[in-house]
Amino acid sequence: MKGFQLSSREYQENDTLIEINTASKPLVIGQGHCTIIAGPCAVEDREGYLSIASFLKEAGAHALRGGLFKPRTSPYSFKGLGREGMEIMLEARQLTGLPLVSEIMDVRDLDFLYDHIDILQVGSRNMQNYSLLQELSRLDKPILLKRGLSATIEEWMLAAEYILNGGNKQVILCERGIRTFEPYMRNTVDIAAVALVKQLSHLPVIVDPSHATGRWRMVAPVARAAIAAGADGVMVEVHPDPDNALSDGKQSLTPQNFSLMYRQIMDIAALQNAELK
Amino acid sequence: MKGFQLSSREYQENDTLIEINTASKPLVIGQGHCTIIAGPCAVEDREGYLSIASFLKEAGAHALRGGLFKPRTSPYSFKGLGREGMEIMLEARQLTGLPLVSEIMDVRDLDFLYDHIDILQVGSRNMQNYSLLQELSRLDKPILLKRGLSATIEEWMLAAEYILNGGNKQVILCERGIRTFEPYMRNTVDIAAVALVKQLSHLPVIVDPSHATGRWRMVAPVARAAIAAGADGVMVEVHPDPDNALSDGKQSLTPQNFSLMYRQIMDIAALQNAELK
Amino acid sequence: MKGFQLSSREYQENDTLIEINTASKPLVIGQGHCTIIAGPCAVEDREGYLSIASFLKEAGAHALRGGLFKPRTSPYSFKGLGREGMEIMLEARQLTGLPLVSEIMDVRDLDFLYDHIDILQVGSRNMQNYSLLQELSRLDKPILLKRGLSATIEEWMLAAEYILNGGNKQVILCERGIRTFEPYMRNTVDIAAVALVKQLSHLPVIVDPSHATGRWRMVAPVARAAIAAGADGVMVEVHPDPDNALSDGKQSLTPQNFSLMYRQIMDIAALQNAELK
Amino acid sequence: MKGFQLSSREYQENDTLIEINTASKPLVIGQGHCTIIAGPCAVEDREGYLSIASFLKEAGAHALRGGLFKPRTSPYSFKGLGREGMEIMLEARQLTGLPLVSEIMDVRDLDFLYDHIDILQVGSRNMQNYSLLQELSRLDKPILLKRGLSATIEEWMLAAEYILNGGNKQVILCERGIRTFEPYMRNTVDIAAVALVKQLSHLPVIVDPSHATGRWRMVAPVARAAIAAGADGVMVEVHPDPDNALSDGKQSLTPQNFSLMYRQIMDIAALQNAELK
Repeated sequence: MKGFQLSSREYQENDTLIEINTASKPLVIGQGHCTIIAGPCAVEDREGYLSIASFLKEAGAHALRGGLFKPRTSPYSFKGLGREGMEIMLEARQLTGLPLVSEIMDVRDLDFLYDHIDILQVGSRNMQNYSLLQELSRLDKPILLKRGLSATIEEWMLAAEYILNGGNKQVILCERGIRTFEPYMRNTVDIAAVALVKQLSHLPVIVDPSHATGRWRMVAPVARAAIAAGADGVMVEVHPDPDNALSDGKQSLTPQNFSLMYRQIMDIAALQNAELK
Repeated sequence: MKGFQLSSREYQENDTLIEINTASKPLVIGQGHCTIIAGPCAVEDREGYLSIASFLKEAGAHALRGGLFKPRTSPYSFKGLGREGMEIMLEARQLTGLPLVSEIMDVRDLDFLYDHIDILQVGSRNMQNYSLLQELSRLDKPILLKRGLSATIEEWMLAAEYILNGGNKQVILCERGIRTFEPYMRNTVDIAAVALVKQLSHLPVIVDPSHATGRWRMVAPVARAAIAAGADGVMVEVHPDPDNALSDGKQSLTPQNFSLMYRQIMDIAALQNAELK
Repeated sequence: MKGFQLSSREYQENDTLIEINTASKPLVIGQGHCTIIAGPCAVEDREGYLSIASFLKEAGAHALRGGLFKPRTSPYSFKGLGREGMEIMLEARQLTGLPLVSEIMDVRDLDFLYDHIDILQVGSRNMQNYSLLQELSRLDKPILLKRGLSATIEEWMLAAEYILNGGNKQVILCERGIRTFEPYMRNTVDIAAVALVKQLSHLPVIVDPSHATGRWRMVAPVARAAIAAGADGVMVEVHPDPDNALSDGKQSLTPQNFSLMYRQIMDIAALQNAELK
Repeated sequence: MKGFQLSSREYQENDTLIEINTASKPLVIGQGHCTIIAGPCAVEDREGYLSIASFLKEAGAHALRGGLFKPRTSPYSFKGLGREGMEIMLEARQLTGLPLVSEIMDVRDLDFLYDHIDILQVGSRNMQNYSLLQELSRLDKPILLKRGLSATIEEWMLAAEYILNGGNKQVILCERGIRTFEPYMRNTVDIAAVALVKQLSHLPVIVDPSHATGRWRMVAPVARAAIAAGADGVMVEVHPDPDNALSDGKQSLTPQNFSLMYRQIMDIAALQNAELK
C-alpha cells in the first residue's frame, strides 16, 4: 500500500483538524474530539425536519445531516426533494446554529450545494467518481468521503488523495460498512479499518453505523465500538417516526434512543481521551 | 428480484437486437450473433492504434474499443489522452469501417462523445452514477453497461432500468468480473450470471474476460466459457506490444492470440446456434 | 503462490490420468477425457436410485454419485441414510457397471467406505479437515477434493498437497462455487479458476454446476462453460422427481434435461479436443 | 433466520453463565463478566510457556490458551507439539491456577484432550465438522466455537445448535473475523455480529482480535471495540518474543502491550456494566 501520499502519517505526522464556522462556536473534527452528525436520511417535510433538528441541538449533536439528492438503486424509488428541500435545511441551521451535511451526486449541483452546505458528502456509490472528486478538490470546504461498498482501504485512501491532490486538505473519511456474504445486516462494518486508517493517516475518520448495519438495534453498539476503536465521531440517522420514514426507517434511531447512544459514546470518548493521553 | 421491469422477459419476450450503422453492413448485437469488440485498453498513439485497428478488421472483429478517458484508482496514474485521442479513433473508423466503443465518465463529455462514438460504455465504477445514467437514457445511442465491482445482478438490472426508463432501449450488459476474496486474479468472472441474465432479460449480454481476470492467459478460456454459457459476445483487450502498454498490458492479448481465441469462440458460437435451434 | 509443489506443472509436466477399474472398461479421468459423474444428491430409496442409475448408464454417464452421509447446516435436517444406503449403491453398481462416488465426512467411516466406494469425495466443508486429508493420503483410491466455500486457489491446492504428500497421487479437484455477496444463486462459479488450475497443475479438474448455482436452469449453461474453459468433466445432480427430493431438489436435473446437457457438453468437448490438438 | 432454537433468546431469555472450576475461585463466562483468555498461538517450549503463563496470571488474565494441534494451510508448516505439549500446559495450570483452552481437530483426540483441557476450542476450519460437533455435544465441558471463515451468522448459530442439541449447554461463541475482499488485514472483524448475536442468543460471545486482524497493532483497538459492542471477553495471543514465534508472531502482543490492552478493556467493561444496568 504505497500509492497514497498526502493523506499518510509520513507526509503529515499530526492529526488534521477540521474547523467549521457556525453561528456560535466553531465545530471541530479530529484530534480526539468526538463529533456526532445526526438527522433523518432524507429531508422529507419542513415540520418534521425542524422538529428533529431542534431535538438534536438540545441533545448535543454537532451537525445536521439531511439528504436532498438521494442515490437510489431503483429508478422508481423516492429520490429526495432535491433543490426544494434546501430551504428547509437552511431554516434548520438558522434555528439551531448547527452546520449542515448533505450529499453531492452530480457536478452540476456543485455551485448550488457549495453556497449553502457546510460539509459536502460523497456517497459510497461515488467514491470513485473521479470527475466529481476533482471538482471537490478545488474547494475550500470539508468533504466527507464515504468508503465505497467494496473499496479496499487503499482505494479509499487513493480517492481521498484525489481531493487532497487538488488542494483541498479538509477530508473526513467515513466507514459505512462493506459488502460481504453475510445477509443478515445490510453491510459489514469494518471496525479494524477504522483503527488502521487512524494509524496510517492523519485524516479524521468517522463511522456511519446506520447505513452499515441497516438495523437500528445495532446502531448504538456499533457506535460505541467505533469510538472505542479510535473513530473521531459517528454519523447516525434519527427520525421522529422511523416507522413512517420515506427511506431507511429500519435503521433510524428514535430521539430517545439517540440520547441513550449519545451518553454511551461520550463516556467511551472521555475514557479514551483520558487513557490515550 | 422484482424491481426491474422494462428489461425483463415478462415485459418483452424476444431478444432485443441492437443495430449500429457502419460504412459497410450494419453491426448487430443480440439474438444469437457472436459480437467481438476488441482493441487496446487506452488509445496511446496514432500509429499503434491504427495498426491494431487494421489487424482487428482483418481478423474479423466487429467493433473497436479504445479508452480516451480512463478511470484510474490513483490520481497519479495515466488517465488517457482525453479529447485529443478522438482524432485517432475517428481515423481508425475511417480506415476500417468498424464502429467505435469508448467510455464516458462525466456528463460534461456527453455531447462530445455522442457526436463521434458509436457505443458509449459505462464503466463498473459508474454503474450507479445515476446522474450519468439519466443523461444516457435520453439518447438514441447504444449503451454498454458494465456490471459494478460488487453489484448484485438485481442492482445491475436496475441500473439498466434507469436507462430504459428514460426511453433508450439500446442497452448491452457486460459482465466484467466481481470482487471476491480470491487474490490470484483481478476479479472473479460470474459465469452463471451470464446465463441467468439471459433467462431473466431480453437484453444482450457480453463478457469482458480481460478486465475480469487481469491475466491474458485466462482470456481465451473465459471467452470460450462465456459463449458456451450463452453470452452474445465478448470484449477483449488486444495490444500490439502488451509488455509496453501504458495500462493493463498484463491482460492484453497479442494479435496472434486474438486470432486463436477468435476461431475458438466462433466455433463454439456455431455449435450453440446449431444446438439451441 | 509458492506453497504447493507436488501438484504443480513444475513438478510434473504431463496431465495426471486417473484410472478406475469397472466391470467393463476402466473409467479414465483427465488428459482431455470428458467425464460425467451423475446421480441424486442423496441416496433416498432403493427403487428410485436403481431407476436413475439405469437411466444414467443408458444416457452415457461415467460414474454414479450418491450421498450416504450428508453434511447439513442444521442438525434438524435429513442427514442421509448412512451405512444403510450402501446396499443400494452396491446394487446400482452391480446393475450398471458404473463406479461409485460418495462423500466421506468422518475418519471413522474410512474403512467402511474404502471397501465399497470407488472415488471418495471430500466436501467443501471438510477441505481443510486435515486429519481426514492425512488419512486419505495413505490410500490407493482416487479422492475427489471439492474446493472450500471460501478457499483461495492456493488453499485448495495446498489441501490437495496434503493428500499428495502422503503418497496418494490420485486427486481430482472439483470447483463447486465460492461464496460471494451475490444472493441470487447459491454460490458463484469461479470459471477462471478452472482454467488457471489447469495451467498451474497436472491434476484433473471437474466442476459441480448443481451445488455451484443451486438452480437447475443454470446447470447446463455452466456445465458447457466448464468444458469450454478446459474442465475434465462435470458432476451433476439428477433426480427422477426433483420436486419431491429430500435434499437439493431445486438444483437437480430431470433425466430429460440431463440428456440435453450431455449432448451439449460432449459436442463442446469434441471441439476442444480437435482444436487444442 | 429460523433454524436455530436452543441458542435463541426465545428458548432461554437469560444469559447463559458458564462456570469452570479452578484451583482457586471458579472462572465465570457470560452475564457481563469480561473474560480474557490469553497465551501464545502454539505451545512451543516449556520455559517460554511457563514464563508467559506466570506473567499472564499476574497481569490478570482469566484463562490460558495454547495450541497443541495446529491446523495449518500447508502440510509443510509447523503443526504444534501435539500430545507432547500437554505436560507443559498442565504444568502451567499447576503453576498459575488458570484453566486451559486448547483446540481439538480430530475426534480421535477427544478422550486425551477431555481429560486435561478445561475449554475445548473448535477452530474456524472445523465449525462445520459435524462429526466433531456431535461428539462434543455429549460432553460436560465448555466448548469455544469459533465462527467459520465465511460462515453466516445463521450457520454459526446452527453449528452451536449441533452441540446444544446433543445435551451440552456450555457453548461460548467466538467471532474471529470473516473473509472478505480486503487484503490489508487477515480477516474482517464483524463487530456488528457480536452485538447481533448477543441480542438473538443467550450464549456468551467473545472476540479473537489476534486472528481476526493478523496485526498486533490492531489487537487493542479491536479488543476495545469488542467489549464496547457487548462482547463477554476476548481471546488474544501474547508471546514473550513475537519476532521469533513459530507461528503467528505478527499478531502477538508483547507482555507490555497486553497489560495496556487489559487496562483499556476493563475500563470499558466497567463503563458498560455501569450503564447497561
